[in-house]
Amino acid sequence: MERQLNEKCAVVGIFNHPEASKLAYFSLHSLQHRGQEACGISSSDGKKLHTIKDRGLVSQVFNDEKLKTLSGTSAIGHNRYSTAGDDSILDAQPVFACYDLGEMAIVHNGNLTNAQEVRQKLIKKGAIFQTFMDTENLIHLIAKSEEDKLLDRIIDAVKKIEGAYSLVFLSRKKMFAMRDPHGLRPLSIGKIGDGYIVASETCAFDLVGATYVRDVQPGELIIFEKGKKLQSIQVYEPTPKHCIFEYVYFARPDSDVFGKNVYQMRKNMGVELSKIEPIEADMIVPVPDGGIPAALGYSQASGIPFEMGIMRNHYIGRTFIEPTQEMRDLKVKMKLSPLNSLIEGKKLIVVDDSIVRGTTSKRIVRMLKEAGASEVHMRVSSPPTTDPCYYGIDTPDKENLLAANMSNAEMCEYIGADSLAYLTHDSLLKSVDSQNDEYCTACFTGKYLF
Amino acid sequence: MERQLNEKCAVVGIFNHPEASKLAYFSLHSLQHRGQEACGISSSDGKKLHTIKDRGLVSQVFNDEKLKTLSGTSAIGHNRYSTAGDDSILDAQPVFACYDLGEMAIVHNGNLTNAQEVRQKLIKKGAIFQTFMDTENLIHLIAKSEEDKLLDRIIDAVKKIEGAYSLVFLSRKKMFAMRDPHGLRPLSIGKIGDGYIVASETCAFDLVGATYVRDVQPGELIIFEKGKKLQSIQVYEPTPKHCIFEYVYFARPDSDVFGKNVYQMRKNMGVELSKIEPIEADMIVPVPDGGIPAALGYSQASGIPFEMGIMRNHYIGRTFIEPTQEMRDLKVKMKLSPLNSLIEGKKLIVVDDSIVRGTTSKRIVRMLKEAGASEVHMRVSSPPTTDPCYYGIDTPDKENLLAANMSNAEMCEYIGADSLAYLTHDSLLKSVDSQNDEYCTACFTGKYLF
Amino acid sequence: MERQLNEKCAVVGIFNHPEASKLAYFSLHSLQHRGQEACGISSSDGKKLHTIKDRGLVSQVFNDEKLKTLSGTSAIGHNRYSTAGDDSILDAQPVFACYDLGEMAIVHNGNLTNAQEVRQKLIKKGAIFQTFMDTENLIHLIAKSEEDKLLDRIIDAVKKIEGAYSLVFLSRKKMFAMRDPHGLRPLSIGKIGDGYIVASETCAFDLVGATYVRDVQPGELIIFEKGKKLQSIQVYEPTPKHCIFEYVYFARPDSDVFGKNVYQMRKNMGVELSKIEPIEADMIVPVPDGGIPAALGYSQASGIPFEMGIMRNHYIGRTFIEPTQEMRDLKVKMKLSPLNSLIEGKKLIVVDDSIVRGTTSKRIVRMLKEAGASEVHMRVSSPPTTDPCYYGIDTPDKENLLAANMSNAEMCEYIGADSLAYLTHDSLLKSVDSQNDEYCTACFTGKYLF
Amino acid sequence: MERQLNEKCAVVGIFNHPEASKLAYFSLHSLQHRGQEACGISSSDGKKLHTIKDRGLVSQVFNDEKLKTLSGTSAIGHNRYSTAGDDSILDAQPVFACYDLGEMAIVHNGNLTNAQEVRQKLIKKGAIFQTFMDTENLIHLIAKSEEDKLLDRIIDAVKKIEGAYSLVFLSRKKMFAMRDPHGLRPLSIGKIGDGYIVASETCAFDLVGATYVRDVQPGELIIFEKGKKLQSIQVYEPTPKHCIFEYVYFARPDSDVFGKNVYQMRKNMGVELSKIEPIEADMIVPVPDGGIPAALGYSQASGIPFEMGIMRNHYIGRTFIEPTQEMRDLKVKMKLSPLNSLIEGKKLIVVDDSIVRGTTSKRIVRMLKEAGASEVHMRVSSPPTTDPCYYGIDTPDKENLLAANMSNAEMCEYIGADSLAYLTHDSLLKSVDSQNDEYCTACFTGKYLF
Repeated sequence: MERQLNEKCAVVGIFNHPEASKLAYFSLHSLQHRGQEACGISSSDGKKLHTIKDRGLVSQVFNDEKLKTLSGTSAIGHNRYSTAGDDSILDAQPVFACYDLGEMAIVHNGNLTNAQEVRQKLIKKGAIFQTFMDTENLIHLIAKSEEDKLLDRIIDAVKKIEGAYSLVFLSRKKMFAMRDPHGLRPLSIGKIGDGYIVASETCAFDLVGATYVRDVQPGELIIFEKGKKLQSIQVYEPTPKHCIFEYVYFARPDSDVFGKNVYQMRKNMGVELSKIEPIEADMIVPVPDGGIPAALGYSQASGIPFEMGIMRNHYIGRTFIEPTQEMRDLKVKMKLSPLNSLIEGKKLIVVDDSIVRGTTSKRIVRMLKEAGASEVHMRVSSPPTTDPCYYGIDTPDKENLLAANMSNAEMCEYIGADSLAYLTHDSLLKSVDSQNDEYCTACFTGKYLF
Repeated sequence: MERQLNEKCAVVGIFNHPEASKLAYFSLHSLQHRGQEACGISSSDGKKLHTIKDRGLVSQVFNDEKLKTLSGTSAIGHNRYSTAGDDSILDAQPVFACYDLGEMAIVHNGNLTNAQEVRQKLIKKGAIFQTFMDTENLIHLIAKSEEDKLLDRIIDAVKKIEGAYSLVFLSRKKMFAMRDPHGLRPLSIGKIGDGYIVASETCAFDLVGATYVRDVQPGELIIFEKGKKLQSIQVYEPTPKHCIFEYVYFARPDSDVFGKNVYQMRKNMGVELSKIEPIEADMIVPVPDGGIPAALGYSQASGIPFEMGIMRNHYIGRTFIEPTQEMRDLKVKMKLSPLNSLIEGKKLIVVDDSIVRGTTSKRIVRMLKEAGASEVHMRVSSPPTTDPCYYGIDTPDKENLLAANMSNAEMCEYIGADSLAYLTHDSLLKSVDSQNDEYCTACFTGKYLF
Repeated sequence: MERQLNEKCAVVGIFNHPEASKLAYFSLHSLQHRGQEACGISSSDGKKLHTIKDRGLVSQVFNDEKLKTLSGTSAIGHNRYSTAGDDSILDAQPVFACYDLGEMAIVHNGNLTNAQEVRQKLIKKGAIFQTFMDTENLIHLIAKSEEDKLLDRIIDAVKKIEGAYSLVFLSRKKMFAMRDPHGLRPLSIGKIGDGYIVASETCAFDLVGATYVRDVQPGELIIFEKGKKLQSIQVYEPTPKHCIFEYVYFARPDSDVFGKNVYQMRKNMGVELSKIEPIEADMIVPVPDGGIPAALGYSQASGIPFEMGIMRNHYIGRTFIEPTQEMRDLKVKMKLSPLNSLIEGKKLIVVDDSIVRGTTSKRIVRMLKEAGASEVHMRVSSPPTTDPCYYGIDTPDKENLLAANMSNAEMCEYIGADSLAYLTHDSLLKSVDSQNDEYCTACFTGKYLF
Repeated sequence: MERQLNEKCAVVGIFNHPEASKLAYFSLHSLQHRGQEACGISSSDGKKLHTIKDRGLVSQVFNDEKLKTLSGTSAIGHNRYSTAGDDSILDAQPVFACYDLGEMAIVHNGNLTNAQEVRQKLIKKGAIFQTFMDTENLIHLIAKSEEDKLLDRIIDAVKKIEGAYSLVFLSRKKMFAMRDPHGLRPLSIGKIGDGYIVASETCAFDLVGATYVRDVQPGELIIFEKGKKLQSIQVYEPTPKHCIFEYVYFARPDSDVFGKNVYQMRKNMGVELSKIEPIEADMIVPVPDGGIPAALGYSQASGIPFEMGIMRNHYIGRTFIEPTQEMRDLKVKMKLSPLNSLIEGKKLIVVDDSIVRGTTSKRIVRMLKEAGASEVHMRVSSPPTTDPCYYGIDTPDKENLLAANMSNAEMCEYIGADSLAYLTHDSLLKSVDSQNDEYCTACFTGKYLF
């Protein structure tokens, strides 16, 4: 009823580097896959914060001239995922505030589950909200805190919020990074020159030439202060519940998140998947790009050859031209096209990372059959997605989730495959080497944390 | 030191009309001359406010689809004048707030002179500012007021601010319009269908087909409520000090502001100007478009023929090409070009509305001389602009105002004219039929109100 | 049936100037009113021609980098008027050709009346046309000529064409300018530095700092050759029939065309108009900007005050928003708005330069009446436009010309005026001081030249 | 000296289909990889040809409205590869001509090697060239032919040209497709509904739902005429010399060209490559996307695991921001990033399709080493590229081709690899199952056909 934005985003922070905003810019560039609607950077020159944020990709919003106005040796940045809403430009981050302790900017990846409740309380106490972002709660909680120092106020504030959050705060002199007690969203620390970088994924470190130090721990608050070592405060007892979907689909394969390499985890899933309802086939075909690592794992474990039987077209662009009668499935074929010569008369195992609504899978199966495949066996390198995420990933409502509404047999018939199998919950946990139930799998189980 | 934005803007409000946002759109279109940087509209559908604001002209920011999302029978709008600043997109209006009484949006034309003081006080009390606009003070003052009803809170709030303000407030059910006790900026009320319109200038009424009712009085607060007559509260004793520069230059000639027609006032200034250092000449030439009405007045009073000796080019566009040696004064000539055949060998009286920095006047005089004018006598239909405006017009600092730094003889030499004369302060007041010292003339006298 | 483009355009040529293409650029800028659809420049560096042409305004198509590629000391340029047609981008000028004598580029203002006939003949002889422009005929005629030298071929070619043409040819070493025997379209020669400029109107000379030398004579071919004086060949006996509509509406008031100043001719028309069905009135109101000079002439002759009773809005922009019921005549009012206070209760003489379809006049009259004018007497500073132009001005077909289909009384009723009067044919000729029947007035008489 | 454009392009033709221009549009979309600078479509409605062409991608140039103006049941289209040149917009295709037999449009993929010679001859005979495209020769040859019928004239014309050409001609009633005697560039025929399609690659057929019929034969001219079967004329004796680089790099893997599937040929190359200087390694890593099929072949033949050790980033965009010191190789890393965790300490065989200048290979090797690879062995699935292509692929001059200027050992040192091996010429021919020397391998041997 009230808008509740599921933010699927990226955050980054640079501290004590002569080209802070430039590093933030390139880091956001490497994290563009986590959000393409809007982006922004706030920098501090020690006396004042500067903020630029706007709709569009990082490369569209920023240019040399703008980066120059973002002066100073610290900067934080944000990529925002596309959401509907009439005031969306206003909902870009960083969120900026002038308050009694000076100036502050915040970026947030995740979703606060008690946002409405906190907001209403704050409003009743006189707070004024100028946007609909849950992140705006933070600046009010900090401003209203009765502590004298920003550090204590941040602690005060994060004690009042619940949900998934990887946060970076920038004040005129300091930077702070904080992760929720479950560590739902990733947040890693790197070293660059004499300074530091924090980012949602380590692929940002690789691009800008930073070296990985460690992750911000669940419940941990890191304080970056000039001339001092990193300080750490464990605000909450860590109770890890990392989002397993970062491994399944969301993070880049060249990133390490939650201490493990994403590509390797996906390959493991493929290995496990090969044990589920095993079948003879002529080839393993991934749905590119998401299904490639699992398909490789499957192939290596099963010995069935891996083939790029579906090609991904790089000149997709947008077309508003209506196709003709002959051109069935044109839109999916403009993006993904089958290698007819390769698959004609062949029995295929097709590997995808997940099935959400099922419409794309249905089109892919039909396309492959029309291209001459004799059999199409769909294999999914994650369990059935039965429940929406409330912690920062923009999944559809339960009524639109295929697996929430159909049996396996029904799904198989719906998508038109000769067989359909999913990774089991246990196999998924095994793939990612889960030791102590340290992953959130609510989207596969409905067992929510809050 | 701190940024202090002089807002040269337009406001509009529509109440109780089935196409409120569309009327706001067209009204802003007719007020585009008051601000071209950004614009915005908030509407209320009775339950919720909707806001769209962005950089650009009204015709660029809005389209049919966007206006449809601005549903409801009341709407307020704003045009913003171009100012520098890294966060300028964030400084567009309406300013929106969710607070304890619900939702609210505000638009403001003017400049609050105690803005920094109020802001610091509010921040000390825990307020969070998310922009650098003085207008943001209002939402904090309203939210923090201890009154129960919005009406009383608005009264509370405007009692704490000082300066120039024509304000329109929109809540879910009501609209409010308020002018500062001096009535520095204009604000008029019109009737359209079963509803009302308020706007900075009456040219908005003419465009949308509304009929003028009366001005909001200095210090008056008007309450628009469905099913009720207009209610009026005189929050302050009115002490009129209308901005005389609206007549001189700023308002559209087809508008009536402060109860009088702008074109007529400008013609009167020309009549008065003809009495200052009168001189024989072959023709009166206006600097278009601003100087036209005064030049007509001058011509009709003096009998010297009025001629369009300088043409204004409508395809100015922007060019970034550097001119060659031969092309002196190219940039002014691309905009304004002399009618060589007409003025060659002639003695000209050139009429402009004002001289600010003097650079344009200098170029115009040189251009006319090069075109063959035998004499160029510059006449200005306002007194020397010696002091900056702090009440909402974006004049340069005193060191950049020609008349603040030179004698009349020096100015005449600087611009290269054969003679130079200004309207006197008294003549200006006579032109606008001033009865009781009811105009602010601080930009000509340095006698500020605050 | 076949497309027959009436080209309402501008041409320019620069010869022997170190910044030829830059001068061409600025000249086209000052001639932008003659065509806004497309533009182009060809330059010669002595060895090779360089051409850039595209859709858009001069300031949109060119930038510093592009002008640099247009190297050399001679250049020709063209502005093209908006016309419909699927290949319009291809129809931009200059027209370029590689042929047996080398390279050549041509620009053309006017319309060839025997274009189809010549084209068909050429095609029968094996010519290939790549566009639908009549100008393309020229390059084929030149290429096919059996003369040895370009000069002789040009003479050969222009002897085969009929209609209105002001042409500029550029070869690697020379430039040529040619006007049809009637001199229907204007073309003037100026001096700049050590070089020359030719342009459709002298306002281009004023902008770039050139001095007027003389017009290219009807039927005259001018040869520009380095190190030599201008050479002239009178290809045809001159039989002047200048387009009188250049004075009425088309040329810029600050230009001299056909040896006379446009503004002055328009004022003369106003003087003559004041003698046609004279009437008492409170004021003369021009329809801006076209009607201003004639209205001034009328006012000066009649003693009735001139007033800017209709304002032209400079922020017209495009709007696609549908107006509401209340907003009658919104579109005309967004462009032209009446000064209600000035005209209320007044008897107006409204002066416009011409009436073509009548729809705008109808709206203006209604708008003025709604604004309170007691009487509106329309006066037109040209005779009734009864016939389309085939010589380069884009008038509508006869069935869409108001004066071709109604009597004066019917037109007056149609536009809703209290009276309507036009300048007579004789008065128009008198206004422009016609001595020997040297003007084409076909659009007012239907007496065509071809 | 004279510009000689190597056109790396795509052509398409549709005949006898109610939505001809729409099919042409989608076909060009699927062939976008062959040229991104400009595109165009000409259609025939039986009476008249309609042409739209412009700079930009297919999805940028066309929209519904434009496709509607391209009416009729036949259409031809073209994608153009990016080339420099001041008049590039004019060099877009189709080339259109009005000539003695009516109207005609042509599209061309390839490069005519005797273009300058033919052009000069034509010009001497009076032809006028309006562009610098070699394709323009064709329309002159056709127009000048003394045959009566277009068919005969086309035969006449193609007998005078030499080089690589896949051509499609459109007249008002017919369509013609022609391939050079060597069949250097591909051109296939498909069936759709009651009509036909010809296209540079069969991936166009798959997208629009056409079925492959056969290739146009080398030297063959196909005539498409309504109500008749395909007619074929073997203008030249076929002497196949297909461009082997289409298999190596240029064509899409899901296309069949020259009768064989591109993906399969690339896999074969990988198989052969595995036999050249075989080496033990931890994994095979392709340079995406080009190296993937060969790497798969290599892996399947050698048993060494295939891993996606380099990721291709899909949000490359353009950035104009200068990187900082720390960010070495930033530009290549923004596009291709190594999977550090996967390759750290590993011995890699890296497979790419070709090395042209060597700069990218150098960066990739350095990037992989910095990411921790213990050894990097570069394997190239084609022979050393030693000679430029003059038949339609835009390779650099010989002095810029790495393999033309260095020994294998020098190249290996230059790119910093631990070893470097190329496919041999014989192995390449074996990979593509060459039977009778039917491939052009001039870019690897310098043995040109002309």
